[in-house]
Amino acid sequence: MRAADVRQRASRGFVASGFEAVRNKLDARLLVDPIYSAQLAAYWKGELVVDLVGGPELDEDSVTGVFSSSKGVAGIVIALLAERGELDLDAPVPRYWPDFAAAGKEAVTVRQLLSHQAGLPSLDGGLRPEDLLDCAVGGARLAAEWPRWRPGTAFGYHSITIGILAEELVRQATGRRLQEIYETEIRAPRDIDFYLGLPESQEPRYRANVPIVPTPEQAAEIAGRDTPSDGLFGATFSMPYPAADGGPPIDAIWPNDRRVRAAGQTAVGGVGSAKGLAAAYATTIGEFNGPRLLSPTTVSQVSQQHSWGTDRVAPPLLGSFAILFQLPTHTNNFGSHRAFGHDGAGGSLAFADPVHDLAFGYIPNPMQYPGGSDPKALEFSRSILDCITTLRDDAPRT
Amino acid sequence: MRAADVRQRASRGFVASGFEAVRNKLDARLLVDPIYSAQLAAYWKGELVVDLVGGPELDEDSVTGVFSSSKGVAGIVIALLAERGELDLDAPVPRYWPDFAAAGKEAVTVRQLLSHQAGLPSLDGGLRPEDLLDCAVGGARLAAEWPRWRPGTAFGYHSITIGILAEELVRQATGRRLQEIYETEIRAPRDIDFYLGLPESQEPRYRANVPIVPTPEQAAEIAGRDTPSDGLFGATFSMPYPAADGGPPIDAIWPNDRRVRAAGQTAVGGVGSAKGLAAAYATTIGEFNGPRLLSPTTVSQVSQQHSWGTDRVAPPLLGSFAILFQLPTHTNNFGSHRAFGHDGAGGSLAFADPVHDLAFGYIPNPMQYPGGSDPKALEFSRSILDCITTLRDDAPRT
Amino acid sequence: MRAADVRQRASRGFVASGFEAVRNKLDARLLVDPIYSAQLAAYWKGELVVDLVGGPELDEDSVTGVFSSSKGVAGIVIALLAERGELDLDAPVPRYWPDFAAAGKEAVTVRQLLSHQAGLPSLDGGLRPEDLLDCAVGGARLAAEWPRWRPGTAFGYHSITIGILAEELVRQATGRRLQEIYETEIRAPRDIDFYLGLPESQEPRYRANVPIVPTPEQAAEIAGRDTPSDGLFGATFSMPYPAADGGPPIDAIWPNDRRVRAAGQTAVGGVGSAKGLAAAYATTIGEFNGPRLLSPTTVSQVSQQHSWGTDRVAPPLLGSFAILFQLPTHTNNFGSHRAFGHDGAGGSLAFADPVHDLAFGYIPNPMQYPGGSDPKALEFSRSILDCITTLRDDAPRT
Repeated sequence: MRAADVRQRASRGFVASGFEAVRNKLDARLLVDPIYSAQLAAYWKGELVVDLVGGPELDEDSVTGVFSSSKGVAGIVIALLAERGELDLDAPVPRYWPDFAAAGKEAVTVRQLLSHQAGLPSLDGGLRPEDLLDCAVGGARLAAEWPRWRPGTAFGYHSITIGILAEELVRQATGRRLQEIYETEIRAPRDIDFYLGLPESQEPRYRANVPIVPTPEQAAEIAGRDTPSDGLFGATFSMPYPAADGGPPIDAIWPNDRRVRAAGQTAVGGVGSAKGLAAAYATTIGEFNGPRLLSPTTVSQVSQQHSWGTDRVAPPLLGSFAILFQLPTHTNNFGSHRAFGHDGAGGSLAFADPVHDLAFGYIPNPMQYPGGSDPKALEFSRSILDCITTLRDDAPRT
Repeated sequence: MRAADVRQRASRGFVASGFEAVRNKLDARLLVDPIYSAQLAAYWKGELVVDLVGGPELDEDSVTGVFSSSKGVAGIVIALLAERGELDLDAPVPRYWPDFAAAGKEAVTVRQLLSHQAGLPSLDGGLRPEDLLDCAVGGARLAAEWPRWRPGTAFGYHSITIGILAEELVRQATGRRLQEIYETEIRAPRDIDFYLGLPESQEPRYRANVPIVPTPEQAAEIAGRDTPSDGLFGATFSMPYPAADGGPPIDAIWPNDRRVRAAGQTAVGGVGSAKGLAAAYATTIGEFNGPRLLSPTTVSQVSQQHSWGTDRVAPPLLGSFAILFQLPTHTNNFGSHRAFGHDGAGGSLAFADPVHDLAFGYIPNPMQYPGGSDPKALEFSRSILDCITTLRDDAPRT
Repeated sequence: MRAADVRQRASRGFVASGFEAVRNKLDARLLVDPIYSAQLAAYWKGELVVDLVGGPELDEDSVTGVFSSSKGVAGIVIALLAERGELDLDAPVPRYWPDFAAAGKEAVTVRQLLSHQAGLPSLDGGLRPEDLLDCAVGGARLAAEWPRWRPGTAFGYHSITIGILAEELVRQATGRRLQEIYETEIRAPRDIDFYLGLPESQEPRYRANVPIVPTPEQAAEIAGRDTPSDGLFGATFSMPYPAADGGPPIDAIWPNDRRVRAAGQTAVGGVGSAKGLAAAYATTIGEFNGPRLLSPTTVSQVSQQHSWGTDRVAPPLLGSFAILFQLPTHTNNFGSHRAFGHDGAGGSLAFADPVHDLAFGYIPNPMQYPGGSDPKALEFSRSILDCITTLRDDAPRT
């Protein structure tokens, strides 16, 4: 390879002194994969220490879809409501949302609902676009449904419905949309470049998510998966049906559907930059364009593990969930055991780590195999943590 | 192979239009395995759409033992009692069965007892024939016993004792035998060819269960299993001791023991045809020789998952249980995620699937390796579901 | 090998008639591994039936560290307090230890605390020597801490902190040290050669624990383990930090640190002989130098499984825990399903088995790979159980 090619493929942006290894790691990856692109950002002790971008599919100014990493940002909104006392995590859901009491769900707590324990990962008859685009529609259907398991006795990843459930709970409890609370109380006042509901004005910045480009081995693995569409995994992860009114189906790459990213559907429709994702988490553990959003006690409460074990929807995977947040495990070890965040189907990852005073954001494009827990996301997060450890040992920044 | 042989080995019986693929699949199997025999039946929307039999060990008129598939039929009786209010699933067991309160079991609920959570998978000192042939005898011993685990904190397959426990609970709650309720209120009035207690009059139809004929590889795998008889697995799955009075031991192929099938022991002693098994389930989701037996609400309640995770008795297997019913998992995907049923040690399988309005029954002979979750049972069930899906798409029958 | 070598490497000591196979098994091992050393002891029906020692690193009179096997002996003390009513297993911990109510732990029960369910496997900021050497110091820090998981919803092996928690609970509940209760009420009056707090007078008998001598394959496996020190596993199993006052760090082979074995830290600091370990357990199921210590009911209560499933700290391992005691599983099948005991990092194992009326103790030196659940420990225990079974069948000793 010529020197010019190497330069052309190198990342652009900034790393603080002591974080050069992170840039090197990203550059090494960009070199070997000519279509690979990524944004990578980190705040340490409230300061931006990594802000990199590279590859043809993302620029400094790009925003793109992060799929399930959206859920973590919704989790920050829930935490804010809990902090203020607007939402009691111990309350039964029907205290806020009376219709939810149907079909044996009267005792389901807010904690259970928001940690994938309610047994509503899919909808009988299938999800439709209007169910996810309007939480009042999807919420009404979910409120009527019998849970697949006794609530609280198991958990399983509610890949799409967790967003509908969180949104409708907030709407019933506060009279406001979760996305609106995020926009007006967190995003806009702190100038965070991550959106739950991408405004028209930002559309020119949107870079479409490019589908996974699997290797032959990966393609064979994907083709060999046997997941009947009527089983729990299939029913949970299938694309929605066409709309009842004959409207267009949801784009197979969810956030590429303007309706999904305009709604900012909290399970799958968030859009932003890696820096914006990291910034959203930075507000939770320190000052960031304003006072600290959450008290340490609230952080402890919402980041405490609520669900653990074999995921009922996606066995034999082991999962660990707090209130909407995903927690690190031995195979998804993105931070210390006090870290909380979420990854996304495209390979994105964002989290806050109170132990290391770190907020991290990463968004690749194209989407990366296998579609979550991108090994590269873990490598980048571990590289940053190594830099922090070295800096601490060598010269404490206080 | 000569054409005459192919004809001779072909299945006999009936498939409705659109279900030809099911017959082809059975015929293909019969061709390659000259001793393999099976009955296969399905009701779709209340109509018999598959009714096949093939191989030398079973005829159109045969009934044979189904081992643990018996448990699902006992589950139907429990559901009927719950529907009528004769059994409250939320009640502590001692409300009906006072002696059960001994040894730290006062708070065990009916739900826990009937979903393998009570911690009584075996009996200290070993099971004897009289314990399983008379639930009053075995029940009294189980009522005195300390659970192996804190009830409700784990589950493990109670392969034999679950039948004793269900029978004795019903006897204590209603004053009647579970088998008698089944016979007089479900089987006889609806002319269902499946028995919990095979009458003498039906004995001429009984075809003995033929033991597994393992391949050399399977035989080696079986021989290599290291399961100490005093461990939880060994104690649960060992054959009963000889009777205290010196009477004969239980036949190693349980339902081949006339005493077991005469008692209709609900864990292991049910006998019938595949059509009868399917018919028993057909009553739960629609009209079948009488009005629908259970309301949709009762079906939702008793088919809801109560137990999930690593089976304490048979680790590292993952299990999923409702009220006596077994539920589909990723490795035992016999129907949609709303299906409920049970398989048996010989390879039998039966279930109802409310999503597809399907009732399914399958009984092979000889017993099939590995002794449950027979891959062929899953293949036949999936073949029938594929036919239904195609018929729905092509030409709705309603 | 010359006959003299074979003789020299043979075990010394005693086996009762019928237990010769146990000696043969130990001798076979001693022959092939010239540095391997072990003490092995068993009481059957209260009588010493196996008392063997062999190899260069242990003598008849040696005592050495047993690491986590200490926890089981602490469990016997807890059981004694429960028997007497000094400790109510169902009580919330703060009833005895008010400060423990901090940080969302007000409802944690004694049962949960002592079965690894409280979510406190490590300490924020890291453990220090004084935390484990003085339970009042470590206990105060743990009492202030937010659990990693909602107590009662998961469990994970609290390798060191479980000892601090048990000791401080006892101190708060009774005003006495757990180790003192053991010494004055169990060890001294019954002349048991196992110490929670090795007195100076016994120091000459102490044989240092020799570190694992791994094979090249084992060394590669150990080196390949990727366990970030800030993850839950790393934070739980890391060595303590140096003391805040600049004192020496804890020896990497814990009981070799005189401070640890002098304190008799109950998670890791017990010291004794295999005969002493077995004797401690013998007191729980029958008379041993005094009346039976625990009623059968108490034994049933404290040996009942409280925790089961995938260990949150050490996934994907499956664990089974009672009140401090470890229980047999399919991969750690040291006794019948009613047995209770504990193994230790060096390879030691001790347990009582009420089904077989057996108390077992085994201590190897050097420490054995992989550092717990030593396959040889299981082999010796199974060999003894086989001898008992044969004796029972051939000629009952009663």
